[in-house]
Amino acid sequence: MRIAVDAMGGDHGPSIVVTGAVNAAREFGIELTLVGKSDVIESLLAKIDRTGLSIEIVNAEETIEMDEAPAMAVRRKPNSSISKALLEVKEGRAGAMVSAGHSGAVMAASLAILGRIRGVERPALAVVLPTLTGTTILLDLGAVTDPKPSQLVQFAYMAKVYAQVAFGKDNPTISLLSNGEEPSKGNQLVQEIFPILQADTRLNFKGNIEGKDLLRGRSDVIVTDGFAGNIALKSMEGAVSVFSDIIREEMTRSIWRKLPAFALKPAFKAVRGRLDYAETGGAPLLGVNGVVIIAHGRSDAFAMKNAVHAGQRAAAQALPQKVREALAPTE
Amino acid sequence: MRIAVDAMGGDHGPSIVVTGAVNAAREFGIELTLVGKSDVIESLLAKIDRTGLSIEIVNAEETIEMDEAPAMAVRRKPNSSISKALLEVKEGRAGAMVSAGHSGAVMAASLAILGRIRGVERPALAVVLPTLTGTTILLDLGAVTDPKPSQLVQFAYMAKVYAQVAFGKDNPTISLLSNGEEPSKGNQLVQEIFPILQADTRLNFKGNIEGKDLLRGRSDVIVTDGFAGNIALKSMEGAVSVFSDIIREEMTRSIWRKLPAFALKPAFKAVRGRLDYAETGGAPLLGVNGVVIIAHGRSDAFAMKNAVHAGQRAAAQALPQKVREALAPTE
Repeated sequence: MRIAVDAMGGDHGPSIVVTGAVNAAREFGIELTLVGKSDVIESLLAKIDRTGLSIEIVNAEETIEMDEAPAMAVRRKPNSSISKALLEVKEGRAGAMVSAGHSGAVMAASLAILGRIRGVERPALAVVLPTLTGTTILLDLGAVTDPKPSQLVQFAYMAKVYAQVAFGKDNPTISLLSNGEEPSKGNQLVQEIFPILQADTRLNFKGNIEGKDLLRGRSDVIVTDGFAGNIALKSMEGAVSVFSDIIREEMTRSIWRKLPAFALKPAFKAVRGRLDYAETGGAPLLGVNGVVIIAHGRSDAFAMKNAVHAGQRAAAQALPQKVREALAPTE
Repeated sequence: MRIAVDAMGGDHGPSIVVTGAVNAAREFGIELTLVGKSDVIESLLAKIDRTGLSIEIVNAEETIEMDEAPAMAVRRKPNSSISKALLEVKEGRAGAMVSAGHSGAVMAASLAILGRIRGVERPALAVVLPTLTGTTILLDLGAVTDPKPSQLVQFAYMAKVYAQVAFGKDNPTISLLSNGEEPSKGNQLVQEIFPILQADTRLNFKGNIEGKDLLRGRSDVIVTDGFAGNIALKSMEGAVSVFSDIIREEMTRSIWRKLPAFALKPAFKAVRGRLDYAETGGAPLLGVNGVVIIAHGRSDAFAMKNAVHAGQRAAAQALPQKVREALAPTE
């Protein structure tokens, strides 16, 4: 099963994407379809050793820029690298599509081209967070800002399937993001959905969890609406980024700090790596008819490699079929 | 004007609270009323040099523990240190009340004892965030999880007044926390309130701001509902705390890291201090008939000193009267 990679996406340009994808191909024995401007891809591949690898190129003349309105861009550019990579999945030539491009456009194009899985009310964007003890799947990140309770329950089911498929967790724990741990805490939506999740014997529901515990690995899945999920994720990103800026500033204040800080460079690099969720395999779009992995725009080659690997694992495990089965009526 | 301090509140016990309050009294010429078990307070004061300071003690036999249900605890313990400190404000013997105790109980007791300012629909809990360039007031943090648009507008007005009163910002910029900067982004509440804030010529509205920019000092005031605000704040706290844990782990992995890390101890301490919002003066409860400052439960003496100072500044500037004027009908 080939993996289709949007070669044009990402803040660092096609070179990083192609390098990461080829590394994944070699390390995990993945067959690649690179989608984008073929001359650009050809010239990048010419510089890379690809002996023994199966790499195809699908030409896509158009690219969607980060500042375009997603739905409009998808309609106006039917030959974008995003849409053409999704067509590879749609038409059965690839088992998954991976893009570090415009995430809104990838979501819109996935809906338009692959469509929703039967029974799914709204697809959700999840992220695999690195935690102190492993990984946690947080969703939704903004696909559905005002979900109905029934949609949030579906998010829990879809994330449960992803935790099983991608991380081999048999009976993943599921929590609800809230403004306090007590069952009485939460906004109207949380208070409405809490008893529903608790009564559902097919879900291993553990109750509410607070923002401060998102990275502590206390739950395999954390469910929330797309507004709060987006704010939680970006608040953490922002805090870590500002923290890093301040550390850098403090470490370069004097020669007495610069010297030991230099000695600690590998340690700082390790710290950053352990908190970079781009390195845990990107963000799966759950609920569409096909495997779609959205990598962070600022992904480096290592993060791209992991995202391609995540796409392959989900495809090999037939993620969309399992989501459909999990959401099928039990009667 | 005296400042009433709940001497029993805070994770570190009365000793830290009293030390911080006395330091504030000395540094800023503040007259103190310490409220709590008088024998405990007496014995703590006996160990501190208080020459030239005006410190009164108000005995409060009861204390509210962190695990009690707020409204119930306030009703069942009318002689708690929280309620008796608020009575000092209510009855005009103190200009402000400061507590590092159970924040839910402080909110409930403030409503019960001080009441809402005329015209205020719902009081809001704000926090003064330290940013790369100064301070930002973020509210609400959980007092109102499902606010109506009109309540969110009031939050903006109240925070504007606090920015003027506490930080001397004449015409503070105001932003709306959202899942994207574009005016089209947001959940229903944000999309409803955006045009209202934009049309209000008395507010210096700057549009949407994302979670990643909360600590970048891009806005003097950031308004959001209590659910999202709580999640944003705690997500940042959690990320910084996990980041610190990982740094500590990485820095002690080998002797080659331990040595330079030891040399950088002052730098790490400076980093933590610059991101600790306890040090910017606690969280004002806006919209009640009196100045109430809620300090973080884990406040140290330095944070308590700053919270007491913030209470004094707000009292001296007649914060509640200015909130009332700001919310008075303009017709």
